[in-house]
Amino acid sequence: MNRIHLAVDAMGGDFAPKVIIEGVINSLRKANLEYQNDLSVTLVGDEAKILSYLEKHSDIRKQIKIHHTDQAIPMDAKPKDAIIKFPKASMIEAAKLVANKEADALISAGNTGALVLSSAQQIPRIKGVHRTALAAVYPTKNELKRRDRFSLILDVGANVFVESEHLVHFALMGAAYAKEIKNIELPTVALLNMGAESNKGGERYTNAYEILSSLPDLNFIGNIEGNDLMRGVADVVVTEGFIGNIAIKTMEGAAETVMGLGKYAFKKNFIWKMGLIFLSSGIKGLKRITDYQEYGGAPILGLERLVLKCHGKSTSLAIENALTLTIKAVRDDLTGNMQRAISAFENEFTRPEFDKVPGY
Amino acid sequence: MNRIHLAVDAMGGDFAPKVIIEGVINSLRKANLEYQNDLSVTLVGDEAKILSYLEKHSDIRKQIKIHHTDQAIPMDAKPKDAIIKFPKASMIEAAKLVANKEADALISAGNTGALVLSSAQQIPRIKGVHRTALAAVYPTKNELKRRDRFSLILDVGANVFVESEHLVHFALMGAAYAKEIKNIELPTVALLNMGAESNKGGERYTNAYEILSSLPDLNFIGNIEGNDLMRGVADVVVTEGFIGNIAIKTMEGAAETVMGLGKYAFKKNFIWKMGLIFLSSGIKGLKRITDYQEYGGAPILGLERLVLKCHGKSTSLAIENALTLTIKAVRDDLTGNMQRAISAFENEFTRPEFDKVPGY
Repeated sequence: MNRIHLAVDAMGGDFAPKVIIEGVINSLRKANLEYQNDLSVTLVGDEAKILSYLEKHSDIRKQIKIHHTDQAIPMDAKPKDAIIKFPKASMIEAAKLVANKEADALISAGNTGALVLSSAQQIPRIKGVHRTALAAVYPTKNELKRRDRFSLILDVGANVFVESEHLVHFALMGAAYAKEIKNIELPTVALLNMGAESNKGGERYTNAYEILSSLPDLNFIGNIEGNDLMRGVADVVVTEGFIGNIAIKTMEGAAETVMGLGKYAFKKNFIWKMGLIFLSSGIKGLKRITDYQEYGGAPILGLERLVLKCHGKSTSLAIENALTLTIKAVRDDLTGNMQRAISAFENEFTRPEFDKVPGY
Repeated sequence: MNRIHLAVDAMGGDFAPKVIIEGVINSLRKANLEYQNDLSVTLVGDEAKILSYLEKHSDIRKQIKIHHTDQAIPMDAKPKDAIIKFPKASMIEAAKLVANKEADALISAGNTGALVLSSAQQIPRIKGVHRTALAAVYPTKNELKRRDRFSLILDVGANVFVESEHLVHFALMGAAYAKEIKNIELPTVALLNMGAESNKGGERYTNAYEILSSLPDLNFIGNIEGNDLMRGVADVVVTEGFIGNIAIKTMEGAAETVMGLGKYAFKKNFIWKMGLIFLSSGIKGLKRITDYQEYGGAPILGLERLVLKCHGKSTSLAIENALTLTIKAVRDDLTGNMQRAISAFENEFTRPEFDKVPGY
């Protein structure tokens, strides 16, 4: 296989650069068994700090380059201001390496909004794609007994509202990504809507539904509603940024609240309290099931190269998982597959009868 | 006080007409103590069936009229088709009584979409209001220790997407409703958005934010995000139908899933199982806390008379609560208060600088 080279933002995340560098080292050690050292990583950030964490790892040192910059975007900075104030920030420099084809993909646990903006500014979009999408992975109760209990939802905030055509692109890109990370040939794809019927949600949604239904290579299962999200009836849930953002944050908030309410109710009574003690390891298990941050990160899709956003609180294991996933995606030419899916759609479906679709 | 007369759809709901009539009888008995028999109800539906449930209640019989119709809209019918197929359906006849000022308010546990359409077709809108809104009441963990742990969210599906002006109207109507049902002078009002900052969500949302911030009689606390919904930081959450529908259903689905996951995890282990047995009454308590259907129903706002939608699975107690709430709202002239709030806004704020707001 070809050499794979990743750009990693060493300064992004609450525990950077320590956990980032540990994660990179662990993933390289593990991947070397499979890829025979054809992997390398550029760590972008403060060289002195990075070097201090590399001291004990001479075995892996030759696979790691350092691209020095002393700027980094704070986790809580306002994205638009931050990318102007820190033009040489580690994530921007890393995005430039990818844009210049010095790296195949970008991984960052930094400020999400700033990463979306930096990536969109630096890295060209896939031909035919007008909007990038930020995806998120969330846990489900997996009613249909799929291989894993996670689903992908996109867009969750790279855009506000979009047109029908963009929803279709999100479906194609999401399906390509799910196929890659879930190892399934035809992931199920659904449109998040305010009702299950095909005529729901206004013109943008009925148009998107019509186009999605007509695509032979897409396993489109129709509209799903908010209460279907965590049932896990679809591998890929397509929506627009404003709504996806509300949906994913509402799921987070509701899950936390219900677990919190449970604790509150249980504290009020001695017998319940005993029950809670018996259950404490069960509750930890439950927390693990719902801790979707361990799933390796959320991709920004629509760019010529993959950008993977890890959670700000990522541990070294989360970073390691993110690199493992990214290496596999680069090896399998994920972005090339997306490009081909988008091209096939654009070539086949830009026909007169689709002139009515807003955005065409 | 003036006489109050309510129209009740006797045939709407999964357990109609039995629980509907029981609820009406119980609420009248209770309310008579306070209102000295100045209350009456018209039950709309199949006269023979209704009479069979009234037999034993001669004490209350003179306060109950029956408006016969043999049509009723099935719970699972498609709303648009149903109101054409059943032009004399019980909920439509009940809405006509309200429109003709033969009744002060309408209560139905029937098909939600059909009730929204029937009400909007029959009952005039409040002057200045262009869009009615369907509200929902949901449980929160009440971080701020408000008087109750419930919040109101609107619109949850009467419209798809709306303009800034409509969001402002929803805020004014929601505040008037929350003031009435929560007995608080200045309910807190928030805009559901994809970020907390005032510049989030695109032009429709930034315009709505600007107007809401400028209203002296509204306790507007700014934007909230999906994960704030169940924290209960606002008494009234303003959004548009598509998004409110996704939000409320996602909360339902997530709450169910987390409770379900808990049970699943707990079943796997004997010690956990024992814990679960100890906890069984605690879990029932938890279920009650999250069972927001007991909160009397969800109003359709923006019409000259109040329409209250009860859950399809309403018990007689839920119907009784809905009538009690409606009687209070009629007594306190809730729709008049809404009318005055909307008029005040329209008179003060239709100024040149608001020409930029879409919808103006």
